Parts: sequence; structure tokens; C-alpha cells
Amino acid sequence: MPTMTSETAKPAPKDPYDLPDVSGLTVGVLGGTGDQGRGLAYRLAKAGQRVVIGSRSAERAQAAADELGLGVAGADNEECARRSDIVIVAVPWEGHAKTLETLREVLAGKLVVDCVNPLGFDKKGAYALKPEEGSAAEQAAALLPEARVTAAFHHLSAVLLQDPGIDEIETDVMVLGESRADTDIVQALANRIPGMRGVFAGRLRGAHQVESLVANLISVNRRYKAHAGVRLTDI
Amino acid sequence: MPTMTSETAKPAPKDPYDLPDVSGLTVGVLGGTGDQGRGLAYRLAKAGQRVVIGSRSAERAQAAADELGLGVAGADNEECARRSDIVIVAVPWEGHAKTLETLREVLAGKLVVDCVNPLGFDKKGAYALKPEEGSAAEQAAALLPEARVTAAFHHLSAVLLQDPGIDEIETDVMVLGESRADTDIVQALANRIPGMRGVFAGRLRGAHQVESLVANLISVNRRYKAHAGVRLTDI
Repeated sequence: MPTMTSETAKPAPKDPYDLPDVSGLTVGVLGGTGDQGRGLAYRLAKAGQRVVIGSRSAERAQAAADELGLGVAGADNEECARRSDIVIVAVPWEGHAKTLETLREVLAGKLVVDCVNPLGFDKKGAYALKPEEGSAAEQAAALLPEARVTAAFHHLSAVLLQDPGIDEIETDVMVLGESRADTDIVQALANRIPGMRGVFAGRLRGAHQVESLVANLISVNRRYKAHAGVRLTDI
Repeated sequence: MPTMTSETAKPAPKDPYDLPDVSGLTVGVLGGTGDQGRGLAYRLAKAGQRVVIGSRSAERAQAAADELGLGVAGADNEECARRSDIVIVAVPWEGHAKTLETLREVLAGKLVVDCVNPLGFDKKGAYALKPEEGSAAEQAAALLPEARVTAAFHHLSAVLLQDPGIDEIETDVMVLGESRADTDIVQALANRIPGMRGVFAGRLRGAHQVESLVANLISVNRRYKAHAGVRLTDI
């Protein structure tokens, strides 16, 4: 038998499809009473994930949770963050910085998933806003230096997410972040939802174009009367 | 029979899949000796389109054209633009403004398709550059006030485009522009290539994120050892 060369002795590169089991983690959704947040909470709870909806008002969070059922809990944003392993940020862009600033301490060490799309709207449709930090996700990273900030779940149709008649959401979820361990967890979380696939799509400095692409999807939806999602080919 | 109401008398909205026949148009590719441009020229010629490769040097353009065969012609950029109905801009970002400035007159009235991705590269991979005008396509529109500027063909793998063993390029082509007549033509051109589908994806102000998304696709390709493309779902 040939001797093993130093080349073949190198550890094999990690399989990008080999992702951790996240079924035991609790997922909080800040802004979980909005369309996007509620839709994500619904899909994750339906997939068997423990979910806590967060809102500025604990009462409104509880009401949204009761409406969803599926074991979903409701709490104010701070309590939601405290109880969760993974915290999805689904607040409106207008309240993004302010909400995160007040949660800096409770979010320290947590895996934060920013899914906010900074968009403006005028007569011609939607257009990308340009956050000073580069993107909503980079703003989150700047405001939460001790959190593990990632970005994902930008291109989902809130209409499809919330439609109980739809079992599968056919779309890829681009996941961005600085730590492979963290982006692997977020990809695995996306994979929990039937039809969705989490795909690593770069570092946070690439978040602006992923967030802003929603403006284009809105144009697509208007032209084709659709709820467009994104799939990546050849992977 | 009920009388036709004014509502039902409104003209039906134009079918977004009803696109013009572009098979008789000549397509020029500025920067057609580069990987992206040569790949596009090859695919369009193979699909039966009349193609002229443009380059700063007529000799290099001619050499690239001879190598491709398929009736492809070669010329310097100005002659290429003059002979073409549709002019694809596939020059490197570094030469983008300078090339277009010199072609302002010959491009007046032409349908220009910008497919340039302004990217920087460092040890961490690719990242989006931020053109002063917002995007390469908006820079083209600013420099070519009398041309009909659109943006498309950003997300194609030059490797796949140039591989004669591959018959279909499985990807959607996001097409952006201000004039529906023009974006319809570019969509129809994309549809000529087997596997490709041209999709209207908004106005030129949405071009930056489409151009920059290539940085994310490069991250995807590196992680998954792939040549990723983009498909839009639900349309």
C-alpha cells in the first residue's frame, strides 16, 4: 500500500452541509408582533422549535403568542431576549438602533440574527436605504459588541410565512456572519422550516446588498403578481 | 347580458412573459475579450444571435472572435458599438467610466446593458465597492445621457459560460432599467440562452445590490466549491 502523503493527511475540509442540531434551542423574535416576525415565529414553532415572541408591550406579545398557539410564549423584548438562545431581530428599521441599544446587556453572548431590511418607499416603489454602519446587521454588530451577530431571513414573504395553507416555503436563506459556528447554527435553524435551506453567503460586510435586494424582490412581485423568493443554483 | 363596466373595459395589464422577438438584433460585447464578455458572446452566438466582440484593440477582438467561431465578429470598441443594436458592457470596473466616456456619441440611442460588478478583493474575499453614482449602471446612465441604459447579466459564472461541455446555464437574469420596452428586450435576449430566464427586477436605482450580490456569490462558491447562480421562486 502507498504511504499516506502529507497532502492526504491534512484534515478534510468541513462538509458545509454538516450542521449542528438546533432543535433544543429557544428562539426569541424581537418585533414578533409584526408581519415578518410573527410569520417566522409561526414557521419555527410549527417546525417544533421553542419560540418566544418579543414586543415592546408584554401584553401585545402575549396576545400574538396566544393567537399562534403551538406553545409560543410572549414577553417584552428584554425578557424575550433573556429566555432565548437565538434572538431574531425583526423590528422595523426605524426602531432598530433604539431597540438594540436598550438590549445590549441582555444580548451579550447571545446569537443574534438580524433580518431587518432598511428600505424607503416612494411613488416608484421601494429603494435601499444606506445605514451609516453599512447595513442593519453591521449596525447591530456595532451596537452589540458582546453579542454574536449574524444576518439572515431577509427575503421571506410575510404573506407566505403566515399562510397556514402553505406547508413549504420554497426559498434559500442567505446567512451571513463572522463566526462559522454561529452561521452554521443559523443555517440549521433555517433548515428546520420545510422548503427552506440555509446557505452561508459571506461576512457581515456583505449584508447591505442582501438586505437591499428586497427592494428588487418587491419590484418582481409587483410585475409578476408573485411572492418571489431566492434560490441559489449549483449548491 | 350585463353591460360592460368601465372596470372590465380597462385594457388588460401586459403579460410580463410576453416579450419581443430579438433574434434579428446584433449584440456587441464591449470588453468581449475578458472572461465574462467572451463567455456571454459565446452563449449568445451559440443561441443564434449575431455577435460582435469589442476590445480596445481590434486585433485582440478579432483573435477572440476567430477563436469562438459561430460567426462572431471582432472590432475595436467604437466600431463594435456602431455595428450593434444592443451593446453589453463587460469591461473591468476600473476601465468602466473611461471606456463609456469615449463612446458617448456612438452609443446615443443604443440599448446598453451594463453587467459590470464593482468589487474589491482582500484576504477576506470580495466586497462591494460603492460607486459615486450609486452603481456601475447608474454611472453608465450618467455618462451616456442619450443611451438607453439597462443592467443585467451580473450573476453569471464565467467558468460555466465558457465551458463548451455545458449546454444549459441554469440561472435567472435580473434585468433593471427605466423603460419597459428596453428591459423587455434584454429579458428576451437572456431567454435566448438555454436555461436562462430574464426577470424584470426594478429600476436602475436598485442596481447596486444586484451588482454587489456577486461578492456573496463568491463566498458561496468558496464555501460550497460551486458556481452559484440565482433563481427567483414563485414566478
